[in-house]
Amino acid sequence: MWQNTRLTKHIGIQYPIIQAGMAGSTTPELAAGVSNEGGLGTIGAGYMTSAQLQQEITAVKQLTDKPFAVNLFVPESVSYDTQAIKQVQAQLKPYYDKFQLEVAEVKAHNDNDFYDKLQVIIDMHIPVVSFTFGLPDRKLINQLKSQSITTIATAGSIEEAIAIEQIGCDMVVAQGHEAGGHKGTYTDARGIGSMALIPQIVDQVSIPVIAAGGIMDARGVLAAITLGASGVQMGTAFLTTNESKAPSVHKESIIHAQPNDTTVTKVFSGKHARGIENHLLRELESSDIAPLPYPLQNDLTTNIRKSAAKAGDADHLHMWCGQAPMLAKKMNAQALFRDIVSHVDNLILDMTTHK
Amino acid sequence: MWQNTRLTKHIGIQYPIIQAGMAGSTTPELAAGVSNEGGLGTIGAGYMTSAQLQQEITAVKQLTDKPFAVNLFVPESVSYDTQAIKQVQAQLKPYYDKFQLEVAEVKAHNDNDFYDKLQVIIDMHIPVVSFTFGLPDRKLINQLKSQSITTIATAGSIEEAIAIEQIGCDMVVAQGHEAGGHKGTYTDARGIGSMALIPQIVDQVSIPVIAAGGIMDARGVLAAITLGASGVQMGTAFLTTNESKAPSVHKESIIHAQPNDTTVTKVFSGKHARGIENHLLRELESSDIAPLPYPLQNDLTTNIRKSAAKAGDADHLHMWCGQAPMLAKKMNAQALFRDIVSHVDNLILDMTTHK
Repeated sequence: MWQNTRLTKHIGIQYPIIQAGMAGSTTPELAAGVSNEGGLGTIGAGYMTSAQLQQEITAVKQLTDKPFAVNLFVPESVSYDTQAIKQVQAQLKPYYDKFQLEVAEVKAHNDNDFYDKLQVIIDMHIPVVSFTFGLPDRKLINQLKSQSITTIATAGSIEEAIAIEQIGCDMVVAQGHEAGGHKGTYTDARGIGSMALIPQIVDQVSIPVIAAGGIMDARGVLAAITLGASGVQMGTAFLTTNESKAPSVHKESIIHAQPNDTTVTKVFSGKHARGIENHLLRELESSDIAPLPYPLQNDLTTNIRKSAAKAGDADHLHMWCGQAPMLAKKMNAQALFRDIVSHVDNLILDMTTHK
Repeated sequence: MWQNTRLTKHIGIQYPIIQAGMAGSTTPELAAGVSNEGGLGTIGAGYMTSAQLQQEITAVKQLTDKPFAVNLFVPESVSYDTQAIKQVQAQLKPYYDKFQLEVAEVKAHNDNDFYDKLQVIIDMHIPVVSFTFGLPDRKLINQLKSQSITTIATAGSIEEAIAIEQIGCDMVVAQGHEAGGHKGTYTDARGIGSMALIPQIVDQVSIPVIAAGGIMDARGVLAAITLGASGVQMGTAFLTTNESKAPSVHKESIIHAQPNDTTVTKVFSGKHARGIENHLLRELESSDIAPLPYPLQNDLTTNIRKSAAKAGDADHLHMWCGQAPMLAKKMNAQALFRDIVSHVDNLILDMTTHK
């Protein structure tokens, strides 16, 4: 029974399929839809305030009584270099002008909102929290565990997976080179393909491993389970569904992309992320001016990208996308989910009978 | 029946597992050993003369009457830039000195030997030829097919796989980002992870797809088949076996490596290849002098690397290695092969029963 894994048993869900916490693109309909089908939906709360998260959780709870997760970015200290900020503002000036925007300023960043969001999660009895962008501290993990909240963190290397197990997380996401969007890795891990990353992490940790990166359909789900994963996390596959709030131009670009069209870049947010190469990405990549550290670079480019999304301009927004866009489908999330699980059963049947 | 694929039926072998044609590291014992177990052994003939290939084939035939393959590099035109050659010779001078070597000269390169080797393959009735480094021409493929020789070429992208099918090759290797050694890709394809590359190529071509890159054990074999591949090609897994003639220092370095230790570089041969980072790689990578095109860079570095291998010096040789070195084993090739196929059967059994 492929769905009878340590992940499904631990969280109490039917199928070991997690919808990734794509910050900015998830909706209550998407998260609840996946959970209602027996998977684990996720609210991508990385960019939300605690008040927004509270509203979002309330909305999801109106649509499902099944477990779902919240994904958070682990905050880190940011050092401000006023001169570097001015340089990037000057570099981006033509794009602010293009969309008739004021020059953006960096925001005040502190960790308060992260801890407020965690309190919301505890108060509202969310069963699963997943983290990206770093290692949460052990005290925090213990606090969540004492509330019976399952904790998941993201690794791009063997070393990171071991560290995640050691601080007491319940599960680890093994995020392969193929993955779209932000790299959860917090050291300078090289891009390791899922085929290599999954079994090596499985051998090195004793907690359940969740495979992420390049998984788009039943074949990928069953391949990941075969490699030893206890479940999968899928981002791009759910990003193009009708329930995702990614801009139409982003969804369309994925549907028409080839794997060679994606690349890993820091120019949009200051952190490595995989997306479809476009004009803004190429221009900023070819510049001598280095992107600011996250979240400062994000602060300065956000409005440009929002304006481009509104204008349906594929050349000036981030278009996160994994390496298997040719497997993306535009359909309802629940139908996609049902399609995947029924095909996994068929694949197993094929494997055990003469073809 | 996982082993009952279009690949096994077409070639007439028992298991869809190909030992990769690792030029410089294969031996008659390795190729024959794999073929005797029901897989497809390969002579890595990229650097051989036609006379050497003839001897090697004779040796393999004394050890097996099962099918085996020969792997060739597709030749390409090389332009000589005398000034650039002198620059690299000067750059490498400290290393020539270190091993008390003459400064190496580039060799005369023409395609004669490639065609002579193909004639040997035809004359000696070799059933399978695989190509790396480019697209053989259609006339050549037709000639081999008229002799009932199965032809296989290597793709790193969707476009390359389609081109390989269009020129009439019987099968295509989908070589993922994880793969060790030389990239078979002949365009500037980005590294696409196997989890994404395999199913997308499977969907875009109608010829059988052979998965390569990161596959080291039964889990990888069955995952690749699950993704739609008709077979797998394994390099690093066989490189550390007793029958491989890779230098001991190379085998030991793989056994002790982590996935983050490998990187893709052109500094050893002039073509992209994945290997374990060492002193020579780092020094040449950090230099302003660009590597010469293949095979000129190879000509200038070969003797340094041979001397380092003899001296057991891990810092000055190429140490090709895929991204899953932690799964590598030092054992006999035939025992490894048997171990893999019996574990695939166990994995299928696990999948169809309650765990």
